Amino acid sequence: MSQTEKLYEGKAKILYTTDDPDILLTVYKDDATAFNAQKKGQITGKGAINCQITAALYELLESLDISTHYVDCPQPDRMRVKAVTIVPVEVVVRNIAAGSLCRQTGLPEGKVLDVPLVEYYYKSDELGDPLLTRDRIFLLDLVSDSRLAQIEKMARKINQHLQSFFDQCDIILVDFKLEFGIDSQQNLLLADEISPDTCRLWDKNETDPTAKVMDKDRFRKDLGRVESAYQQVQQRVLAQIKKNDCS
Amino acid sequence: MSQTEKLYEGKAKILYTTDDPDILLTVYKDDATAFNAQKKGQITGKGAINCQITAALYELLESLDISTHYVDCPQPDRMRVKAVTIVPVEVVVRNIAAGSLCRQTGLPEGKVLDVPLVEYYYKSDELGDPLLTRDRIFLLDLVSDSRLAQIEKMARKINQHLQSFFDQCDIILVDFKLEFGIDSQQNLLLADEISPDTCRLWDKNETDPTAKVMDKDRFRKDLGRVESAYQQVQQRVLAQIKKNDCS
Repeated sequence: MSQTEKLYEGKAKILYTTDDPDILLTVYKDDATAFNAQKKGQITGKGAINCQITAALYELLESLDISTHYVDCPQPDRMRVKAVTIVPVEVVVRNIAAGSLCRQTGLPEGKVLDVPLVEYYYKSDELGDPLLTRDRIFLLDLVSDSRLAQIEKMARKINQHLQSFFDQCDIILVDFKLEFGIDSQQNLLLADEISPDTCRLWDKNETDPTAKVMDKDRFRKDLGRVESAYQQVQQRVLAQIKKNDCS
Repeated sequence: MSQTEKLYEGKAKILYTTDDPDILLTVYKDDATAFNAQKKGQITGKGAINCQITAALYELLESLDISTHYVDCPQPDRMRVKAVTIVPVEVVVRNIAAGSLCRQTGLPEGKVLDVPLVEYYYKSDELGDPLLTRDRIFLLDLVSDSRLAQIEKMARKINQHLQSFFDQCDIILVDFKLEFGIDSQQNLLLADEISPDTCRLWDKNETDPTAKVMDKDRFRKDLGRVESAYQQVQQRVLAQIKKNDCS
């Protein structure tokens, strides 16, 4: 299967058609952006790291009955995925208050939420990915009520599985962003990626608020040691997957 | 009843205690602010105009079984109101897309909404009155689920009454902001004000997008003729109230 026409280039990935109309090829880039692409840079090796972490987590989730778009990785920074129509709503699951939730509500960073919060943002770079209420989702006709209920249920299940897996890796899953897609048979599939680009991950063994950060906040906030944090997440995730496979 | 201790000074009104602990005195100011007080100015006569418009509309709403905090106006720019604890959620009712809804969703200004949209914003100058989802309202413990349901129901009724009244005045009620309070007997009362400061009002007889604006957008967007627009709203509202009373 060769990579053919470029379908779309995003901030972190490029999507190509393949010889099979039901399969697309995603190439993960080292490019890093933040604050709606106002800050730009590179994180050496990020493309392959995020591709490998996503592949490992999507295989894990598939084994737990979560349908994803993942097919396989022909190369470390390349993933074959099922062709889907992306739902234009980014789903953010929050276990601990951080980032825009704190800025917009005044909640202190680090506050553990009694119940995980599932929030929706409009996937629109032009508008700066604004927060969506349910009424705005339906007003904009972004997704149906029943599909949104299905998405929320799936997002909460994914959160339970990932929280428990990252805990085994000595990593606290603070929050993360998911994207969903709908395939030609109208199945809902988890799409996009799950990586330090799309999650807030804190090292369970660190209490220092800067040292514990293992995700893109190191890049956003210029905390240094960005590459090594990404590598550390990859190592722990792959080691834990191996451990679970052998037990 | 004398005005005694200043309780609170807001951007558009000052609140005083009175000799009666259940009654407060509101003094409406000519001060105008926009964009979370980044833009400041004065609109001559605004205090008395907004006080008189609010009084007329609250008397109208009371006659239609909507409980408000309104008591009476001892002077044109002064209103006696029942003492309430303000719910820290601003309720915005939208009939036509305008303002932040358009900026945040890309909907074109002027799009008539099939069903009026009731939205909630966190009453926090410090945070810039951010949009709230229902989950965030409950997470922040701003108001209970049952009270919010009561607020939404009341806001929709108020909208029906006001839309029909403003239509009689040849004014289109585009959107407006409400605040609610809870009195010592736990009654929910409509509080704050309803005026060209808190509504978007378009002249039904004007099609020009600038000429039709009869509200604070004239100040926000430097459209000129601010005072005369406020006066025009007051005249039409008071004339229509009189007409209805005599019919």
